[in-house]
Formats: sequence, C-alpha cells, structure tokens
Amino acid sequence: MTLGPEPPVPVAGNGLLDRRLFLSNALSFGAVASIASGSVTAAVPDEPWMREPGAAFTNYGVPSPHEKAVLRWISATAMAPTNGVSWSPLHELDGILTPSGLHFERHHNGVPQIDPALHRLVINGRVSRPLEFAIDALLRYPRVSRLCVLECGGNSNAGWQQKPIQTAAGYFHGLVSCSEWSGVPLRLLLDEAGLEADAAWIVAEGADAFGMTISLPLPKARHDTLLALFQNGERLRPEQGYPLRLLVPGWEGVVNVKWLRTLTVSDAPVMARNETARYTELQADGSARMFTFEMDVKSLLTRPSGGMQLDGPGFYELSGLAWSGRGRITRVDVSADGGASWAEAALNEPVLAQCFTRFRVPWQWNGKPCVLQSRATDDTGAVQPTRAALLAARGRHGYFHYHAIVSWQVDADGALSHTYVDADATPAATAVDPFDADW
Amino acid sequence: MTLGPEPPVPVAGNGLLDRRLFLSNALSFGAVASIASGSVTAAVPDEPWMREPGAAFTNYGVPSPHEKAVLRWISATAMAPTNGVSWSPLHELDGILTPSGLHFERHHNGVPQIDPALHRLVINGRVSRPLEFAIDALLRYPRVSRLCVLECGGNSNAGWQQKPIQTAAGYFHGLVSCSEWSGVPLRLLLDEAGLEADAAWIVAEGADAFGMTISLPLPKARHDTLLALFQNGERLRPEQGYPLRLLVPGWEGVVNVKWLRTLTVSDAPVMARNETARYTELQADGSARMFTFEMDVKSLLTRPSGGMQLDGPGFYELSGLAWSGRGRITRVDVSADGGASWAEAALNEPVLAQCFTRFRVPWQWNGKPCVLQSRATDDTGAVQPTRAALLAARGRHGYFHYHAIVSWQVDADGALSHTYVDADATPAATAVDPFDADW
Repeated sequence: MTLGPEPPVPVAGNGLLDRRLFLSNALSFGAVASIASGSVTAAVPDEPWMREPGAAFTNYGVPSPHEKAVLRWISATAMAPTNGVSWSPLHELDGILTPSGLHFERHHNGVPQIDPALHRLVINGRVSRPLEFAIDALLRYPRVSRLCVLECGGNSNAGWQQKPIQTAAGYFHGLVSCSEWSGVPLRLLLDEAGLEADAAWIVAEGADAFGMTISLPLPKARHDTLLALFQNGERLRPEQGYPLRLLVPGWEGVVNVKWLRTLTVSDAPVMARNETARYTELQADGSARMFTFEMDVKSLLTRPSGGMQLDGPGFYELSGLAWSGRGRITRVDVSADGGASWAEAALNEPVLAQCFTRFRVPWQWNGKPCVLQSRATDDTGAVQPTRAALLAARGRHGYFHYHAIVSWQVDADGALSHTYVDADATPAATAVDPFDADW
Repeated sequence: MTLGPEPPVPVAGNGLLDRRLFLSNALSFGAVASIASGSVTAAVPDEPWMREPGAAFTNYGVPSPHEKAVLRWISATAMAPTNGVSWSPLHELDGILTPSGLHFERHHNGVPQIDPALHRLVINGRVSRPLEFAIDALLRYPRVSRLCVLECGGNSNAGWQQKPIQTAAGYFHGLVSCSEWSGVPLRLLLDEAGLEADAAWIVAEGADAFGMTISLPLPKARHDTLLALFQNGERLRPEQGYPLRLLVPGWEGVVNVKWLRTLTVSDAPVMARNETARYTELQADGSARMFTFEMDVKSLLTRPSGGMQLDGPGFYELSGLAWSGRGRITRVDVSADGGASWAEAALNEPVLAQCFTRFRVPWQWNGKPCVLQSRATDDTGAVQPTRAALLAARGRHGYFHYHAIVSWQVDADGALSHTYVDADATPAATAVDPFDADW
C-alpha cells in the first residue's frame, strides 16, 4: 500500500503538491510524511487521568484550561476602555465557524446588559403604520438561518502601513468571524409597516450608550437583511447584540447594528458619524469613497502563518480562509514562491456565499527561504489583488477595505513572518495604527 | 403591498400553509399575522442601558445571564454521579448548529482533564509498523472539516414507554447535537501504519477512567472516520474528547470514542461491554440485533413542542430538525391533523449529509385541539416510520434507535404535550427509564 521512495511531483514551484493527493487510496501518507510520527514497540501505559473518576457533568461547557491562550485579543482606547475592538484568533482555528465566544467585537461604549423583557424594536419614519415589537413578539415571526461572515470595514488595515506589521494572523486579519445566524427577514416587518412611496433608506439605531446610528439602503434591507436573534444555534451573545441585531450579509460590519432598537425609514441617509467622519476615504483623484458597503474578495493562509515555526523540511498542509461579501468563492490559488507560480487549493465543502471557505493544499518544504501566499476568486469573477495593485487603485489614503494578497516569509530556520513582496517606497498618507481603536 | 383580508389557502388540513408563502414579495406578512405586533405613536424613549457605559471587552464570551435557563439537562446515576448523560436543549435553539457548550454528553466515569502534552495516540495490532503520535504530531497531518450530527444510540428511548413521556423536546430527543468537526482522516494513519491482510476491525480505547472500548469495522474507519481535533472552529471541549476523539459520521455515538488513546487493528470485534451487554436488543423473532451502527432517518418539531404554550389562534411558524445517519434529508412533511394530511416543509439551506436539516412551515392555528407531527425522508428513500410501524417491526424489547414520528398534542388553550396517536396496548418488555442512566 506504500509507494516507493519517489516523492510526489509538485504541481507548482517550491513543493506545492496536488490538492487531490490524499483523496484517493493511491498514495500512502506515510510515503510522503512519515516524519510526523514515531514507531512504538512496548505496551501502552495508562495515562494518569485513567486512575480516578473525571470531572462532573456541566450545564454549559467551556474550553479546556490548556487552551486558555486561544483568546480574543483586546485593543481598546486607553482613555475610554469601552471603545475598541477585539480580534478573533483565526490562526488558532480550523473549519469555517468561529466559536461565539471568540467572535470579533467592535464596541463604541461597551456592551449593554439588556433585559430582553424591557427591550423594544420600533419601526417608524416613512411607513403607513409605525410598529413596536417586544422580543417575544419577534420570536413569533418566520425565521431563516444562514452561515455568514461578518467583517469590520477596517479589518486588516495594518496592511496600509509602509512596513509589514508583525503579529499573529488573527490579530492582523481577525476582525472577521463566521457564524450561523437565525432571524426574521427584515422584509416581512417592513412590508407589515407599509413603506411610503419615497422610502429609500433605513436609519438603524442601537441601544448601547454610544447610540450607534447608521444608514442602510432599502433594497439591501428588503433583499436579505435579517433581524438576527440566534447565533450558532443559541440566542445572541451580549457582545453580538443580544437580544437583537441587524445581519446584513456581505456588508461591512458597521451596518450590522447590534442591540437594535429603532429602524427609521427615510428618503435619504442620515449622514451619521460612521458614514461621514469615518468609513469615508480620500482617493488619489481627490474624490471620496463613501458607502463602500460590500466587502471584497479576500483570503489568507492561517496555518502556517506569521509568528509560527515550521519543524524543519518536510510535509505541511497549507490551510487558510477565503471569503467575499459579493458571493461565493470559486477558486483559491496558493503560491510557495512569492507569486511566481500557483497551485489550486482544495475547497473544503460546504462552499457558501458570503461565508468563510476553508482551503487546503499539501506542501513539501525543502528547507529554503520562501514566501507563501494565497489568492481568492469569487463567483462575480473578482480576484484578490496584489498589494501593489491595491495601492495603485486606492492610493495612500486607505484605512478601510484592505484585502490584498497576504505574504508570509519563511526563513531557513522555519520561522514565519509577515512580508511585502513588492517594495513600498511611499508612506501612507493616513496614519494607521490598528492597535489604537480611537476611530 | 398588502393583500386583501382573504387568508392564504391552506395546502394541507388544519391550516398548514405553503412553505414558499413568504419567499416572494407577493404577500405581506402583516396580512397574515398582524397579531404579532402593535402600533406605536409616541417618541421612542431611551432604554436604561443607554445612559452609562456598557461592560468591558472579554477574551472569551459567554451567553447573556438572561439565557441561563438554556442548559444541558443532566441525568446522572445517583450512586455514581460521573456516569450519566446530559441533553441538548433542542427546543431552545434555532438553525442547525449546537453550541459546543450545549452539546449532549454521555460519560461513564466523568470527564478526564487531559494534558495534551502528555497524551499519546497509539496504533497497534495487525499493522506492519505500530505508531505513536503526540498531539503536536497529529496537528501536522492534513485535515478535513465537516458539519455532522452525533447521536447517542439510546436517544429518544422514552418513546419505547407505553405512556408518552412529558418533558421538553430537548430533554426527550436531545442526545443528538450537530457541530463542525475538523480532524485527520483516519485512513491516512492506518495506511501509514500498514494494515495486515486479515485486518477487519479496529478496537478503539478512550483515556477516561472507564477505559471505554468499542469495535469499529475497518471499511468505515477507512471511509470517512476522522480523528477530530477541532469542534466548531476551536479545539475540542473536554467533555467532547479533548484533545482527540473519533468522529464516525452517521454512526451511533458510542463508537465515536472520546479521549482516544489506542486503536488496535484486529481480525474480529473485541466483544466489549458496549457491544454485548448493551447496544444489543432482543427481537420479536428471538434473534438479537447487534452492531446496529447506522442511525436512522428522524425528525421532530422543536418549535412549538411539548411543554410550550401558544398565544392563541393565529399565525405560527412550525420549525424543527431532521437528520439521517444514512445520508441527506430530501424531504420533510408536516401534519397538523395527526397524520391525516401532510404539507411539505421548506428545508433551510445548507442541506448536508449526516447533518441536521432545519425545516420550517407556516401555520394558521384555528384555536381547536389538534396533533402536530413531522416525517422525514432521506436520500436512500428511507421514511421515518409511525410509532405503530416501528413497534410492529422491532417488538417491545427496544431500548435503542427509537426514531418514530413524534406527535405533539395542542389543546384548545394552546398548551402542547407529548402524545401517541395510536393506542399502545402492549407494555414495553424492556424497562426504559431515560432518567436513570445506569446503562
């Protein structure tokens, strides 16, 4: 069952192997990667925890204490510690789901502790019949469930810096998470309220002490926006908007208003702080980008990734995440030679629109320095750009929507670090400090 | 945009409506179900939590304190409290995922607190090269991820009782949960070890203080069995086998050995306690069913369900879960008249093999007593049987694999309870007490 000593033939430069290598029975894994295990000859001794009864049952489980380093990394404003972000540790995870306890956070004034019996949702403005809903009433409505990413518009913005930031992949790109959300289609409630003829936007307001307000175009609100009540099976966590949030599939996080309390239908956007002073960028031609709702096609290798250490030459699985706010991922390519050649990665099913897609590709590392990259394509045909192409298109005033190809440098000693494959001679015009969340 | 006062025409008896009713823009929800909301005229007052900063960021989130009643219900042996089960509260959840903290448990002697640095997996027996793996070595191997149910072979066994048990749906049927599992295909390690010519079974042993042992046929082990390391994105929870468990898609929970430490390849099953004294049933013809690995096609309505209370006549969404260990759910039918007529339910995407499928159907309750049921069909053509048909086929010695249609009685006051639609004149031959886990 084991092949001879010949290694499999690479499909792209620097040891990238066919994504289907282990799907058939044709090739023994041991022929490729026997380094990862050792032989055993003696009897197997008991482990110490086999000698006494284990811990009791629990009503609600938590991770092992040995995994306590797998955490959201908090970056809050020094003067206002309730204003900031926390990152999902994408580099520690596998699959496409983010555990709710590790979902990224962005709060402007902390997490309100809402009593659902006292909370109300009001729909008013340009409607024929203003409506007020208790949570129990909303729970009577038809619901739909969907797996969906939620990404902060400012995710990965350290990529705009002139020098590559050195931090774990999740603490660079982890203002994105993926959950199963269940809730009421917003369209049902808007139709019940009755939209007036000039209705064009909805202003959503949160019940936190920031009074988060933002504008959402009506077509998107009626298309696939949900009033989410459940996340990953259970009711929303407080930091994800309990008891009620907007879920606007594929659109930047800021419009997915948490702790939702009012939806005011209007004929124009409200021009709130987060759509004028923020989430607006000066372009090279002097114009300003604003209302850039849709998140772009994007990917990164999470294993291995910056800050990790390879054990030496030999077999590795390269694994990462790809997603697009515009649709479904159709292809991910991986390079082990800094973009000179590319191998198609295997996409782990299910592959769903506006959802994380997990990709994997086998790799035989020869022990020499190299650069690992991934490049995603979605079903609109959009391809993740190189950093040079993104800078050329967007200029140096960027702060939001950074989605260029991510490059990990592998040194001869196996250490990985973040790198840019194109020299960056132009400083960013906008000060980008991802660890100061004073947005 | 609102239709006239005519209600939509039912598609089956007693008010079941077309599953596509709200998918188009043709019908306003308000025309059907305006009872669920009230009008508002005054300004919207601030809520109290808007007046002071909210709670600080956390490294790992937990549910709202207002949801603390949503818990696993523990039923452990009085004399040995580390031996028992805990149920997932399926009646409180939506979507297809079970939060890891609410995944059902079955332990024989508690939850070992394993230090992953000290834990080893050994593959021995009829192999050409016995192998030993540290967890770090296993983490070097290629992995796959999949959404998959895990169901105890004894789930729902209160259904064998002569009288319908009265408890919440999850505390009757909740020894099943659904997660995304990521791990190493077992085939890769077996091929690396090299199987001898007479290899036919694998005996798996857990590192708990029970020393759980069970036999698994080699074809299944090589087909799709995983050495699971991750659940719902993060590493396994201790009660789900941290740091390593078997995941045997679609097969009864007992073979999905947690805290996995040895895999001994053999030519025959080991005839362990859990495949002889348990998980074996006397049939009507005097023969014994054993090695009944595959879980059957099954469904139940979770909302509303037994113990819940309807608010009065009017609109409700009927929602539930369907799954099959044999494959993918192709159809779920729902009855509101005790099985006299059926309406096809909408299946919420994604619909995946050996995974929960969430189904939904709109219903207009007329306020009269009735019986609600669901009936699942899978892609092997298997149809969930009536309780009478299951008893006729299996006799009255049943304890495992109860999967008959579940019936919820709705009284005129809106109270739901568990019922049997067929009179049950024959007592069960096997004492079934689901709240005594002394199996």
